[in-house]
This record gives sequence, structure tokens and C-alpha cells, in this order.
Amino acid sequence: MHAITIPEPGGPQALVWDEVPDPVPGEGEVLLDVAASAVNRADVLQRQGFYDPPPGASRYPGLECSGRIAAIGPGVGGWAVGDEVCALLSGGGYAEKVAVPAGQLLPVPEGVDLRQAAALPEVTCTVWSNVFMVSHLLPGETLLVHGGSSGIGTMAIQLAKAVGARVAVTAGTKEKLDRCAELGADILINYREQDFVEEVKRATDGRGADVILDNMGAKYLDRNVRALAVNGRLAIIGMQGGVKGELNIGALLAKRAAISATSLRARPLSEKAAIVAAVHEHVWPLLAAGHVRPVVDRELPMNEAPAAHRLVEESGHVGKVLLVAP
Amino acid sequence: MHAITIPEPGGPQALVWDEVPDPVPGEGEVLLDVAASAVNRADVLQRQGFYDPPPGASRYPGLECSGRIAAIGPGVGGWAVGDEVCALLSGGGYAEKVAVPAGQLLPVPEGVDLRQAAALPEVTCTVWSNVFMVSHLLPGETLLVHGGSSGIGTMAIQLAKAVGARVAVTAGTKEKLDRCAELGADILINYREQDFVEEVKRATDGRGADVILDNMGAKYLDRNVRALAVNGRLAIIGMQGGVKGELNIGALLAKRAAISATSLRARPLSEKAAIVAAVHEHVWPLLAAGHVRPVVDRELPMNEAPAAHRLVEESGHVGKVLLVAP
Repeated sequence: MHAITIPEPGGPQALVWDEVPDPVPGEGEVLLDVAASAVNRADVLQRQGFYDPPPGASRYPGLECSGRIAAIGPGVGGWAVGDEVCALLSGGGYAEKVAVPAGQLLPVPEGVDLRQAAALPEVTCTVWSNVFMVSHLLPGETLLVHGGSSGIGTMAIQLAKAVGARVAVTAGTKEKLDRCAELGADILINYREQDFVEEVKRATDGRGADVILDNMGAKYLDRNVRALAVNGRLAIIGMQGGVKGELNIGALLAKRAAISATSLRARPLSEKAAIVAAVHEHVWPLLAAGHVRPVVDRELPMNEAPAAHRLVEESGHVGKVLLVAP
Repeated sequence: MHAITIPEPGGPQALVWDEVPDPVPGEGEVLLDVAASAVNRADVLQRQGFYDPPPGASRYPGLECSGRIAAIGPGVGGWAVGDEVCALLSGGGYAEKVAVPAGQLLPVPEGVDLRQAAALPEVTCTVWSNVFMVSHLLPGETLLVHGGSSGIGTMAIQLAKAVGARVAVTAGTKEKLDRCAELGADILINYREQDFVEEVKRATDGRGADVILDNMGAKYLDRNVRALAVNGRLAIIGMQGGVKGELNIGALLAKRAAISATSLRARPLSEKAAIVAAVHEHVWPLLAAGHVRPVVDRELPMNEAPAAHRLVEESGHVGKVLLVAP
């Protein structure tokens, strides 16, 4: 088969479409003919040499895909060759074939195109596990999403609205904020022109956000704590603004607030399977009913992965950028 | 009645036993004839002028007491004049009488002396709410308790052991660590001579602590994060080591760990009542069965509050210091 390989870490050109051996499904795994994969920021870090795949994972990038089951390994029940699925991967999605643990498979939701389903696994699992399983966002509460127009952001807006929460978003342009509004965001904050702490407080009668989904890490740590409501929960899923920041414990304690930080890729199989099962139970019906949909910026052929990475690095997109297998 | 007043904030001598008006129980409150109160570090901060009582609270110090119900305000059911109780207070325990919302009352547990019951409300409510309700310590997990010989520490050891967890403690002397061991602590760390991160890792095959109960705040923040296990939870309930500290978000994220910070006194009545109800359900049976007991360092007459504060400030005690009403 062909896959995107990374012979030497570096810029987008480090991604090379090359012939490689076919993967073989192990115990508890299935082999997929990939229809499409999607670009995640973690892929960019991996390409740059800053984020090695975890032990046992494919060396090729790609943390999610959609496709058809081509073969079934030993010990797998409930799936058949030919089933249309999407999957959370620990790597290897930028390829024509990929082997994946059966616990990380999801059926393509009713009403969703096979290729577009590649946009779903990372964002639904990340948002559901952080905003709902860890941070327990409740109806009537306010969620603040940083980077509202990103893949994660566009899914977080839709899921929070679907459960009856109020949603505030930050983004860097009016166009991106308009797209967030179309998806249901209630409070639109241009971080280049406005102070998100002040805007969130203003929009909530001074209360603040009950849950914050953050991809900035250190740069926003102090402001996020200030933007939290009493009993608020800050869920950190990225560190685009740095790794170490000053925490005002006094402010956290006065609010009886909490901070969690997670990543999906490093979780053991059992935790990934539990998240995938919860997403199947809670998010898939919302997709089938049309209340939530994948947001895809564009589809590019898989061998144009360098162009797709450039697009994501320049943040010129809204939602997900897909890579379609030949 | 008489109460300890604070005419001018300052050292222990700022505590003055004086004649003051009797409190009157309001809607939903009862009036107690106080048998004993107990000293908390928050009382020391209040005496020094650093911790004003929340709005509506008594201006006198004392966050817990035991005693007999002397009168019942409007709208209170389920309690009778003469009942022996202990209570979580938002202030006013250092007095002959105190008014308290009925949701913060607990019966004196079977087998516990009326005066000694004054040692229970703050520590049981603080430990249960943080270690169990917020941080969900599970059987087989490891709890690290800083200040193992404090009132909070001695209760945390006992409750964690009672649910089948393993307990590590830090303390500053061999004598204090010996007392922790008598209460069931498994891993004894002298913080003056040992590095708690190293000792906890050594005792857990490198895993770390699943839950940490911390009273030091900034000074221990980085080391606490290093001592956490994967999926670990750090519960901060005090800032004796400072308010602002550097948080390594990368380390937190790699462990999928969480930090919470709470205080009991500022919680609204509904949250206090929910915690008191959970403590009654889960902790009181352990007290009645003798699996858990109040740990009292000594009892002093209430008008010797200055001496009691000196003792607590010098950390010369193990467990709680009680102030007995005349």
C-alpha cells in the first residue's frame, strides 16, 4: 500500500507519499481500507519531530479515519468485512490501509457521507470525554470554547448546544465567529480585539464560564481561571500557548474550581474503548437526528498532505481538513 | 452569654473572652448551648485579620462545635430541644451559644463523648468532600496526605484506610509519623529529611499517588504534580506555602491529571447541607462502628483560646485542640 511517511522530521515537505508494507491486523484488531483521514495539530507536531507515536502505534501520522472493513483479526466480534466505519487511531490514518483495535471503531452515522465521517472520531471523543465525562457540563451552564472555529471547537459548540448549554467562543476573525454563530454559539469573542475574561463576565452577569475547553495552555492559564464561575471546570487539551504558567491557587480556591488536562492518544486501549462507547451512546444519536454534523473545511487528496498541513498551520480553515485516499 | 471576640486583629492575645448579646436562631436555624469548639487554622487567619467571616456569619471565630439544642427556630423539623449534636459553623463556635442552620447539624455519633464530637465536623466534611466527593478516592488507590498529624490529616488517614485505600503521609517529626502509623498510615515521609516525590514513587513502584490532599498550595504545587499517578487528582485545601505557583501543564496533561481547590466556609448553605448529609451517610456509621475516631490533642477552657492558638501555630499538636465552654 501507500502511506504518508516522515523520513526526516521538518516542514510540510517532510510528508512523503511512499510505498510501504501493508499492516496486519493483530488480536482484537480489524484492517480498514481507508476512505479518508483528517488532519490534527498533533500530526503537525509529529511531522516536526516533537510528538513521537506511543509505543506500539503506527509510525505514520493520522489519528482518525473512515473506511470499510477489509479483514478481521482474531478475537473480534460484532463487525463484518465491508462494514462502513470510522475509527479513532493511535497513528497510521494517512494511508490506504490501517489496522485498528475493534474498541475504537464506530459505525458511519446515519445520514453522514463515508468520507466526511473521517472528521468525527477525534473531535467527538475529545469533546465528549473532556466537556462531559470529565467536566460534566450541564444544561443551562455556560461553556467557553477557545478556537471556536477549529475542528474541536465546531463540535464543542454543537454538542454543548444540543444538551442545552450556552456557548461562548473565541476566534481571530469575524468570518470565523460568523461560522461559530451559524453552529449555535451565543457569545462571540474576537480575541484580537476583545478581552475574553471581560466579555464572558459581561455576558453572564458577572458569573463567568462553568466549563472552559482550552487549547492554549500556559498563555491563557491565569485568564482562564479568572473567567471561571464558582464551581467552574477548566479542561486543557492543548498547549499552543506554552507548557508552564503561573497558577493563582487562591483564585482557584475562592471559586472551588478545578483544572484537568488530558490527551486522547496516550490513553490505554481500555480508556479509549470506554470513550468510544460513550460517544456511540450519546453523540451518534445526535448525528443521526441531524442535530450535530461534521464540519469539513475541504477535502484534499492524501498525497497532498503537505498542502493540508500548511493550511492547518496557517489556521486558514474552519472545522476539519480531510485527506482522501486514492 | 460570653464569646471570644477580636476587638483588634493581632497575635493570640487579640482573642478576648467577653460578654456579648445572645444569638437568636433565624428561619431554618437552631440555637445551641455549646459544649466545646475546636481550633482551625482559618481561625488563626481570622484573628490576624486575613480572613474575614463571609457575609451573614457570626463575627466571632469558631467553625465547628458540639452541644445541646437550646431552642428551635421557625421552619426546622427533625430536631428537638435537648438533642446532643455537633455542627459545621460559618463562625461563632468560640462562645457559650451559637445559632446554626439545621442542615449543618449532625447527631453526636454513638460511642463518642459530647465534647470530643466538636473535633468532627470540619475534618469529616473537609476530608469527605475533597477526597471522596471531588477526587473519588477508590479502594486500592494510594492517598498522599500532607500534614498527616493535623486534624485533617488524622481523619484523612482513617477514612482512606476504612475504604481500603493505601495512605502515605508527610510530617515533620518521628513522633508525629508514629502517631500517623498508629492510625493506619502505610508510607511515612519526614518532609524535613526526605523528598516526598521520591518516597511516594518508591513505595508505589513508580506509579505515584492517585489522590493528594494538600494544605501547602504554591510551595508544593510542582512537586505534587510530579508525585501524582496517571489519572491522579490533587485536592488543594490550604495555602500555607503560598498562593501563586508555577504549574507544569505538560506534566499534568501527560498524566491526564486534575487539580481542584476548595474551601468549606464560603460554600452556600445548600452545598454545606449536601456535604453534611453525605458525611452523615458515609462517615457516621464508621464512627459508630469504632473504625474511625476523633483525634483530640487536648482540651482547654474556652477563655484560654490564646494558648490554644499558640499551640496550633507552633504545630506542637496531633489532631484537634478543643476549647471547652464553661
